[in-house]
Amino acid sequence: MSRPERSRRSDYRFFHPISTRWKDNDAFGHVNNVEYYSYFDTAVTYFLLCHGLIGVTDGKIITVVVETGCRYHASVAFPDAVTVGVRVARIGTSSVRYEIAVFRNDEDEAAAEGHFVHVYVERAGMRPVPIPEASRAALGTIAVAV
Amino acid sequence: MSRPERSRRSDYRFFHPISTRWKDNDAFGHVNNVEYYSYFDTAVTYFLLCHGLIGVTDGKIITVVVETGCRYHASVAFPDAVTVGVRVARIGTSSVRYEIAVFRNDEDEAAAEGHFVHVYVERAGMRPVPIPEASRAALGTIAVAV
Amino acid sequence: MSRPERSRRSDYRFFHPISTRWKDNDAFGHVNNVEYYSYFDTAVTYFLLCHGLIGVTDGKIITVVVETGCRYHASVAFPDAVTVGVRVARIGTSSVRYEIAVFRNDEDEAAAEGHFVHVYVERAGMRPVPIPEASRAALGTIAVAV
Amino acid sequence: MSRPERSRRSDYRFFHPISTRWKDNDAFGHVNNVEYYSYFDTAVTYFLLCHGLIGVTDGKIITVVVETGCRYHASVAFPDAVTVGVRVARIGTSSVRYEIAVFRNDEDEAAAEGHFVHVYVERAGMRPVPIPEASRAALGTIAVAV
Repeated sequence: MSRPERSRRSDYRFFHPISTRWKDNDAFGHVNNVEYYSYFDTAVTYFLLCHGLIGVTDGKIITVVVETGCRYHASVAFPDAVTVGVRVARIGTSSVRYEIAVFRNDEDEAAAEGHFVHVYVERAGMRPVPIPEASRAALGTIAVAV
Repeated sequence: MSRPERSRRSDYRFFHPISTRWKDNDAFGHVNNVEYYSYFDTAVTYFLLCHGLIGVTDGKIITVVVETGCRYHASVAFPDAVTVGVRVARIGTSSVRYEIAVFRNDEDEAAAEGHFVHVYVERAGMRPVPIPEASRAALGTIAVAV
Repeated sequence: MSRPERSRRSDYRFFHPISTRWKDNDAFGHVNNVEYYSYFDTAVTYFLLCHGLIGVTDGKIITVVVETGCRYHASVAFPDAVTVGVRVARIGTSSVRYEIAVFRNDEDEAAAEGHFVHVYVERAGMRPVPIPEASRAALGTIAVAV
Repeated sequence: MSRPERSRRSDYRFFHPISTRWKDNDAFGHVNNVEYYSYFDTAVTYFLLCHGLIGVTDGKIITVVVETGCRYHASVAFPDAVTVGVRVARIGTSSVRYEIAVFRNDEDEAAAEGHFVHVYVERAGMRPVPIPEASRAALGTIAVAV
């Protein structure tokens, strides 16, 4: 296994700090592989909230997560602080691919990195719809050429 | 049900900030009742770590949680930030009772408050043992007369 | 600390099986104290769903958790199976007190037991309202004299 | 986005049932994308435990999760029951790739499917080591040609 190069903070555009919790550690004493996705999910949702782009109980268009993935480079453990970096790697007609990294304390190399794909759908029939303009504009602010 | 008075930040001695996560919210759109205990658990463990008083994989004496409880006064929801206040209300021979409150954003009145009882036991036979002096001293720094 | 007597399966009226998860175990290798509340919450919600008594996104009356508590008697660890026992200990005008126990595998004595108090409120103003008759009838089916 | 064909139960070799929990549902009323990884993690760990192949606190060789991923085809929500299907898609010198699917209630098509890669390392220096023979034999029992 040749390890891919680890990405760095400068590779990301939006950052969200998250405090680890005791319960994040599993029986091996490190943050369990599952919890990284909670960090991803939180950072993306926070980004959307910051732009007023999420409406949980109303709105005809919602976002559905269709794919996620993570590669784990180094372990993190409570009480580490983590910073989640987010960038948009691809904006399609109805879907957006976020790329996300978890940075441990002050480290510059990612402890883990992954992706998260949202599809915009009509709440009623769950059919894909074009990404609304306001969302597209906000996503553009953290888009990178990859 | 006459609601008890809500405690305030000045009633606590140790504080630990925690960032909420999207997944903390349940289907009602508020932090689920379960997660408050994760905030409690994290703050107490952090206090112990700060004093070098926790050893997960070695040490002959460990702490066991024997009782917890929480009263919920007001809801918290992602992306609120919370601050957990901790105080020690009773130090017995083998057990300590922490009292804990969750403060929402900059609010001074607790959104929730509860307790958390640790018993010190021998790892081998799980028998209660006297609280070690170093622990007793650290606990004393956040003890209050109640 | 004189340990209270542990309750038994026959002390409860409704049972819900729950499979433990690897991540339930914390760094001590046992189910973390927090997760028991997830078992409580799941069993109570399941009971209400079985009686058609929960409506997450509609309905003018919702239930709010105002107090929970748990005493831990013995540890549980993944891959144990647990059975949650539920009974109703008190039905007031607007509130209901559930008492709940967690049984490990085939054991008859509770590994943990606690309580869970719901208040019925108007969704709009969050004011307590009388428990609706259908709910009161369902709660009565698992009520015990305590 | 052309959706890939969804896999079926007959595509997997080991099955582990998991009960959903109320808290698995997020504010959209469906199991949050994060929790699927908890189902994956639980099923793989259970498989290893069944074969006596996991030692949390001792053993010189441990498994480290280096990559996970999931594609979500259809939603699951509490109180659905899920069955997790597991197969081994590749056994390398030091690593194994599990492929995993989540089946909702009695459905035959996967609601979600993904992968989970373990590397075997020395606990001390965290260097990859050849997969021990006992593990290799057990993994072989659920291996498929893909």
